Amino acid sequence: MSVDVSTEDLEYAAGSREANHPSSPVAYFGADEPLRLDAGRDLSPFQIAYNTYGTLNADKSNAILVCHALTGDHYVASQSPVTGKPGWWNSIIGEGKPIDTSKYFVICSNVIGGCMGSTGPASIDPATGEPYGLDLPVITIPDMVRAQAMLVKRLGIDTLFAVIGGSMGGMQVLQWTVSYPDKVFAALPIATGARHSSQNIAFHAVGRQAVIADPDWHGGRYYAVGKRPHKGLAVARMAAHVTYLSETALHRKFGRNLQDRETLGFGFDADFQIESYLRHQGMTFVDRFDANSYLYMTRSMDYFDIAADYGGSLAEAFRDATTRFCLVSFSSDWLFPTGENRAVVHALNAAAASVSFVEIETDRGHDAFLLHEPEFFAAIDGFISSAARARGL
Amino acid sequence: MSVDVSTEDLEYAAGSREANHPSSPVAYFGADEPLRLDAGRDLSPFQIAYNTYGTLNADKSNAILVCHALTGDHYVASQSPVTGKPGWWNSIIGEGKPIDTSKYFVICSNVIGGCMGSTGPASIDPATGEPYGLDLPVITIPDMVRAQAMLVKRLGIDTLFAVIGGSMGGMQVLQWTVSYPDKVFAALPIATGARHSSQNIAFHAVGRQAVIADPDWHGGRYYAVGKRPHKGLAVARMAAHVTYLSETALHRKFGRNLQDRETLGFGFDADFQIESYLRHQGMTFVDRFDANSYLYMTRSMDYFDIAADYGGSLAEAFRDATTRFCLVSFSSDWLFPTGENRAVVHALNAAAASVSFVEIETDRGHDAFLLHEPEFFAAIDGFISSAARARGL
Repeated sequence: MSVDVSTEDLEYAAGSREANHPSSPVAYFGADEPLRLDAGRDLSPFQIAYNTYGTLNADKSNAILVCHALTGDHYVASQSPVTGKPGWWNSIIGEGKPIDTSKYFVICSNVIGGCMGSTGPASIDPATGEPYGLDLPVITIPDMVRAQAMLVKRLGIDTLFAVIGGSMGGMQVLQWTVSYPDKVFAALPIATGARHSSQNIAFHAVGRQAVIADPDWHGGRYYAVGKRPHKGLAVARMAAHVTYLSETALHRKFGRNLQDRETLGFGFDADFQIESYLRHQGMTFVDRFDANSYLYMTRSMDYFDIAADYGGSLAEAFRDATTRFCLVSFSSDWLFPTGENRAVVHALNAAAASVSFVEIETDRGHDAFLLHEPEFFAAIDGFISSAARARGL
Repeated sequence: MSVDVSTEDLEYAAGSREANHPSSPVAYFGADEPLRLDAGRDLSPFQIAYNTYGTLNADKSNAILVCHALTGDHYVASQSPVTGKPGWWNSIIGEGKPIDTSKYFVICSNVIGGCMGSTGPASIDPATGEPYGLDLPVITIPDMVRAQAMLVKRLGIDTLFAVIGGSMGGMQVLQWTVSYPDKVFAALPIATGARHSSQNIAFHAVGRQAVIADPDWHGGRYYAVGKRPHKGLAVARMAAHVTYLSETALHRKFGRNLQDRETLGFGFDADFQIESYLRHQGMTFVDRFDANSYLYMTRSMDYFDIAADYGGSLAEAFRDATTRFCLVSFSSDWLFPTGENRAVVHALNAAAASVSFVEIETDRGHDAFLLHEPEFFAAIDGFISSAARARGL
């Protein structure tokens, strides 16, 4: 499989902030291939950073697209050059794993609006020669998927064997089956929903206000003044992180345990382990993520509501579905509770789609989709294997 | 009933920030009556702002103490001079109401560490002549209760007929029955727990970090520079407010409804009603609440863990309980879920205490204890009436 990166692409990448992430291929789309955005504007030029694993087969029928979550990236099964950490879904993707890279060709791209190499608010706006900041139009989940479809086409692939992703990634999976119903053989939306709930919008609104309240944000133009709204973004991350865990898991992991002390400190330092843990989550996050991208990513999720374009009927959205679906929820996930996932299942049933649904019993909350959950792995393995047989792979 | 306010008290009040709230009586405790704090230091002098409703009877047996919640105050059944709003528990307290002021003498005081007239971080530190800021020792729930006991004694009352409060107020109620088991005839801890959970500490940690991240906080010394960390405090309030509501209530009240528009705005203004609502909650809160007090109040709740002083046994803490208890939880409250309330009931059962327990079915979340909930009112009415008969009132 040859990777489609022209010299022009590399120059573009080298001329922008994306030069920080040179380890992945980048697909460049010039003036002749604009990305039509839901905001009503074209994004052009733009680029998509991505990684691939495994080998595309001769008839190009073994491609699996992985869609990443809010703060994820395309280093799904290889070490991140930014954090040095292993791929975020190494547990699922690799040789001999549920998504076996000796059998499938796995693609994962950084979403548009992101900050790991694809065009986002930190990229240079060709109109000004300065980073976009908030001049980048709001990016939607359908926009992200439209860009991914252009990448998939660029890679010479007509139909994806499967699309898989959790949380915001799951939203993209669902959108793929609605936007391109004949281009996805199998879909695995994990721990997700067909719309963002009021409570979830609320938590995102808190996070965005925390970023915007930071004077170092400078109306989104912090790149020019050499500042970054680290404090606000850290608070946003802390608030979000609480929602990724279950009360039970927090109690089990941290309870009321004190940090590095025998007795209460009677001050405002981090007395409890949970405080120290959250501060650490906030502080490490700001080193790897762009604050404006955080605004864009959260906004894309808030805007997501598949049924809205179909008179409020989710079943109507899936009317043309020929895709085989496997949905997975986690019992203690209160961000995308089983009910939200089941609502999608019901709509798919109403649309007479092929759908299976698994709720994994776990106390690890929303984050479970990123953790070692053998039943979850088994569900993916079983569904992928069955779909592969149906596809003749 | 004469209110015990000396001229000295009024002078003290006039000389400090508490002069903003002249409409309530203030009890002053001078050098001869220090408040012993759990932090190991004495607070002296200090003052308690309070309100009373109804008339103390001849044998002083009809007093009910109301304990307020995190951001509450002593204007429980009369208009707040700061917000102009009616008393926050007008629904429960007044003539002919479940806590009938034609029958009972109701006392409500602003907690120590607060910002509505009682000594808190905005009060003048006599050692420096400047506001305490973070030099005020961390205040605990037992500290608050110890101060309330001094006020009750000052009012000439030996034994309270009842103590009632919700959330942080409920923590104080529980603490009263442990600290002064023979001074409380009946106790009504509402929507509370005997300790703050890891998840609740986590949300408070987020709020505190939001305040501390605001450069206008100035290490807590913002009074001197004429600034207030409004932005950070607003973010803290927004985050907390989400936890006071249930997902169901948010969906019912706001859903994904847009604010003042027909279609998505494709920007970062408040598109959704829930965003606009939360921003409003944040902005109005900062006008009435001191940011440092917010740090102290949240810390007091985080530190709360009754069993900790009794070898981890909650039942042991209630060993001497002669009080009659009525606990109330709300089915959709995920901040102090029914399980946390029930854990107290189980401990009281183990201590052979007299206890009744009601879970109110509602979708309004933690905030339900402040809202119009007829079943809740009926439960209070029934328990208070029954306790009054037992007390011979």
